[in-house]
Amino acid sequence: MAKTRNKTRKARSHKRSVDRTKARRSVRARVGKRQSAARANRVSAEDKLAELKRRLLEISDLSAASSVLSWDQATYMPKEGAAARGRQGATLQRLAHEKFVDPALGRLIDALASKASSLSEDDAALVRVVQRSFEKAIKVPAEYVVRASVLGAASYDAWTRARPANDFAAMVPFLQQNLDISREYAEFFAPYEHIADPFIDDAEEGMTTAAVQKLFKALRRELVPLVRAIAEQAPADDRCLRQTFGEPTQLEFGLRVAQRMGYDLDRGRLDKTHHPFCTRFSAGDIRITTRVREDDLGDALFSTLHEAGHAMYEQGVSAAFDGTPLGHGVSAGVHESQSRLWENVVGRSRGFWEHYFPQLQQSFPDQFTGLALDTFYRAINKVERSLIRTDADEVTYNLHIMLRFGLELDMLEGRLRIKDLPEAWRAAMKSDLGVTPPDDRDGCLQDVHWFGGGIGGAFQSYTIGNVLAAQFYDAAVKAHPDIPHEIASGTFTALHGWLVDNIYRHGCKYRPNELVLRATGSPMRMEPYVAYLHGKYGELYQLPTRPN
Amino acid sequence: MAKTRNKTRKARSHKRSVDRTKARRSVRARVGKRQSAARANRVSAEDKLAELKRRLLEISDLSAASSVLSWDQATYMPKEGAAARGRQGATLQRLAHEKFVDPALGRLIDALASKASSLSEDDAALVRVVQRSFEKAIKVPAEYVVRASVLGAASYDAWTRARPANDFAAMVPFLQQNLDISREYAEFFAPYEHIADPFIDDAEEGMTTAAVQKLFKALRRELVPLVRAIAEQAPADDRCLRQTFGEPTQLEFGLRVAQRMGYDLDRGRLDKTHHPFCTRFSAGDIRITTRVREDDLGDALFSTLHEAGHAMYEQGVSAAFDGTPLGHGVSAGVHESQSRLWENVVGRSRGFWEHYFPQLQQSFPDQFTGLALDTFYRAINKVERSLIRTDADEVTYNLHIMLRFGLELDMLEGRLRIKDLPEAWRAAMKSDLGVTPPDDRDGCLQDVHWFGGGIGGAFQSYTIGNVLAAQFYDAAVKAHPDIPHEIASGTFTALHGWLVDNIYRHGCKYRPNELVLRATGSPMRMEPYVAYLHGKYGELYQLPTRPN
Repeated sequence: MAKTRNKTRKARSHKRSVDRTKARRSVRARVGKRQSAARANRVSAEDKLAELKRRLLEISDLSAASSVLSWDQATYMPKEGAAARGRQGATLQRLAHEKFVDPALGRLIDALASKASSLSEDDAALVRVVQRSFEKAIKVPAEYVVRASVLGAASYDAWTRARPANDFAAMVPFLQQNLDISREYAEFFAPYEHIADPFIDDAEEGMTTAAVQKLFKALRRELVPLVRAIAEQAPADDRCLRQTFGEPTQLEFGLRVAQRMGYDLDRGRLDKTHHPFCTRFSAGDIRITTRVREDDLGDALFSTLHEAGHAMYEQGVSAAFDGTPLGHGVSAGVHESQSRLWENVVGRSRGFWEHYFPQLQQSFPDQFTGLALDTFYRAINKVERSLIRTDADEVTYNLHIMLRFGLELDMLEGRLRIKDLPEAWRAAMKSDLGVTPPDDRDGCLQDVHWFGGGIGGAFQSYTIGNVLAAQFYDAAVKAHPDIPHEIASGTFTALHGWLVDNIYRHGCKYRPNELVLRATGSPMRMEPYVAYLHGKYGELYQLPTRPN
Repeated sequence: MAKTRNKTRKARSHKRSVDRTKARRSVRARVGKRQSAARANRVSAEDKLAELKRRLLEISDLSAASSVLSWDQATYMPKEGAAARGRQGATLQRLAHEKFVDPALGRLIDALASKASSLSEDDAALVRVVQRSFEKAIKVPAEYVVRASVLGAASYDAWTRARPANDFAAMVPFLQQNLDISREYAEFFAPYEHIADPFIDDAEEGMTTAAVQKLFKALRRELVPLVRAIAEQAPADDRCLRQTFGEPTQLEFGLRVAQRMGYDLDRGRLDKTHHPFCTRFSAGDIRITTRVREDDLGDALFSTLHEAGHAMYEQGVSAAFDGTPLGHGVSAGVHESQSRLWENVVGRSRGFWEHYFPQLQQSFPDQFTGLALDTFYRAINKVERSLIRTDADEVTYNLHIMLRFGLELDMLEGRLRIKDLPEAWRAAMKSDLGVTPPDDRDGCLQDVHWFGGGIGGAFQSYTIGNVLAAQFYDAAVKAHPDIPHEIASGTFTALHGWLVDNIYRHGCKYRPNELVLRATGSPMRMEPYVAYLHGKYGELYQLPTRPN
């Protein structure tokens, strides 16, 4: 760092002296004064931009360090390290936050924003993105951030005990406080059309509650009859996935596939953890984690492909954006589209397994020798009405999301009291999925989101991701019709290349809706997703052809 | 963190109001005024102490985070992560340094130092240690720190190429600059008796060049004839260590022994790396690393015990000191005494292997079945005059150190020109160890110290560690005569307990010389070490009994 800084300093002072020399010469020219002023103005904008980037890089370094600490905590940290580690991570985050809400940074941003037209396209995008984040950040008082963090930690801690104990009553006071503090958050961004808008805009810039509701309503009209039609068929037999599968082979197979898809192991790695995640430390270090269940082949394999999708997105972001707020995926929904595209659209497709099933059979000869590809393919795409969102299949998954989104709005808008949540959950499950949880543990206590963070904006991105995954894949195949054949031969170059060119490399340069429009020629639309589901599951479950 | 801080704040404001109430009441009393003033004074010192600790904890968090980043870089980081990682670590170190040299911290320290007599023993020690570090830190200008770091990095980088190429000439300009910048460092601490004093005091508070020279002179008088006498005997046969040993079993065996010695794996772990080290992130997270050579059993095993010695020291420091400058081992020499005590005094003793050799035979039946314990014991204690310090045995090791220490002083004092170093090295090796390096690669280019950091103060602590290891072990056995028998039965409780009580738990509370005096009843003395070497190697090599 010292070295880099020194070089930068030297380069900068060299640059200044060159500019001064140029400026002296130009005074001699006839139009000298005007030129010189313009140049001085430009130089000053350049200096401000360099200062902005220097500050953002320092903030990025603190955040990245905090991410390394979290990764280590989730992978290798010995158990007694937890207390100090929590404090160390919080210190880094606090320092990063303090540096971000520094009024001097705000003045730099304002000065540059007023000269946006003179900036390069990338720099103008940077200033826009930083300005948006800065203005959001300064609306939220520091004491609120501390209070919300304390409440979140206490509530999460209580939830880790209350869920296994099936003790919803213990969570009522926390949930009430989480609801109150979430409403308080929304007020920082008043006026709004809908109280959930600020949360949704945090996750998906430009998205609104009304737009999500409209999408979900239309999607539900398609999904409910599809799920019903599938439920009327014989269920798929997935016993072949429930044998015993050695951990090292599972890990090796998943990572081999991810690498082949495009996950670069010179800039990444796979480790074991409790809850799989993807994390970015820099353009050159983007890691994924998975967990392994020896009695369930799907768990590690598909979570590896899922996280590798997130990681390929991050690895594809232009290295020039590294260490700036442009240097990562643009929104929760677009990010989720990539994990789901690689996990589901590719990783659960028949073509993919035409190529990979023989390799899987070689890796697990005792388990799979003699098994028909079709049996395996049906097993990994089994649709069933189930209680747990994270275990749900591609088709029913969105119904779980819609249910949560609806209850979330009901709570935020005061239509649903906290104490009535379990009953409302059961009723919605019964009506939407046709199953009723026997207890709250597998009912409204199942997801951490409302208990650890706050109520609002946490769920819609999963379904947006599903919808966008199909829309992006559709556009990629239109551009490269050979993609399905490539996948069936274990090649992912054309698909990965299209995604890099049209999505990944841009990082946060374009707003999510701009990105979707540029990449696919249309705003987000659910038709490709619905067609994908009907096509795939219509064939799998031999459903009557869908009327158009 | 947020949570802790909030609690602290509440506790503090509660405390203040209690104190105010008490103060109001005391005004009514006859001696009220004096009492109240004393109390206000005390409260103010308490507040200052709390503020000092808060600031030190923040600095400690930044340093610990930087250590996590370094550990990760040395263990798991993918190769393309290096550039950003270097910058991220440097950012954390720079922020920690900025916060440490903050004049406000200096004022707090001064205010508390002036009231040291009213502080608890621990707090007074804390203030003393912080004051010493602060006063050292502010003597060194920030621009020097940057310049030294840039030079060190460039020189290290050049050395990584020059050593394999045996290219001393390429290092001459760097070595000259490293010498100049080291002299410049010494000048910040002028006046000094000897130019190396500031470096030695950094590593070992209270130690001087003159004291090291005196120790080394006396020790050399003992070692040279001992090495000569051993060299006249038949060399030990260590071929049994040069078979093929599977990596997982090597790692498992070393860690099992370290754990049994007292290394707590709930607060630590072992990973593989290129250069073994021990690192502390908090009282609950102190890790070691090792490297494995399948063709050399000793490498991983003894480096694991060595690093576990460092780690047990750190794990033994009172948890109350965690996150403060008292919360780690007190000096390089005392630290090294612990790594060498566990690696050599215990781990290469006959008693130890009486217990563990049967277990090692079970772990490596193909390699060790039928081998006599005595052959193995002689192999792991083979003495030979060799070229490379890091491969040297217990007896000749110190001659390597003394050689470097002497040349270092010659360079610092201007008696030896950089260009003449290779020749001086060869001459000293010939005269001290009776061997002459065939090239500079295995001569004066072999150690990173002069090339990466600067010239001065880097080597003496290794020998101080050897000397103290024997002195501490001697004192422990005097207190618990059963220790050798316990070791021979694979039990380390009495030894570990004595070390925790007398050394580890104190962290940096006592100066190194105070600690040695308290623990052993005398200042550092070489007699136990000399007796240890004569006893052990006299028997091993059947030397004539040493005249007293």
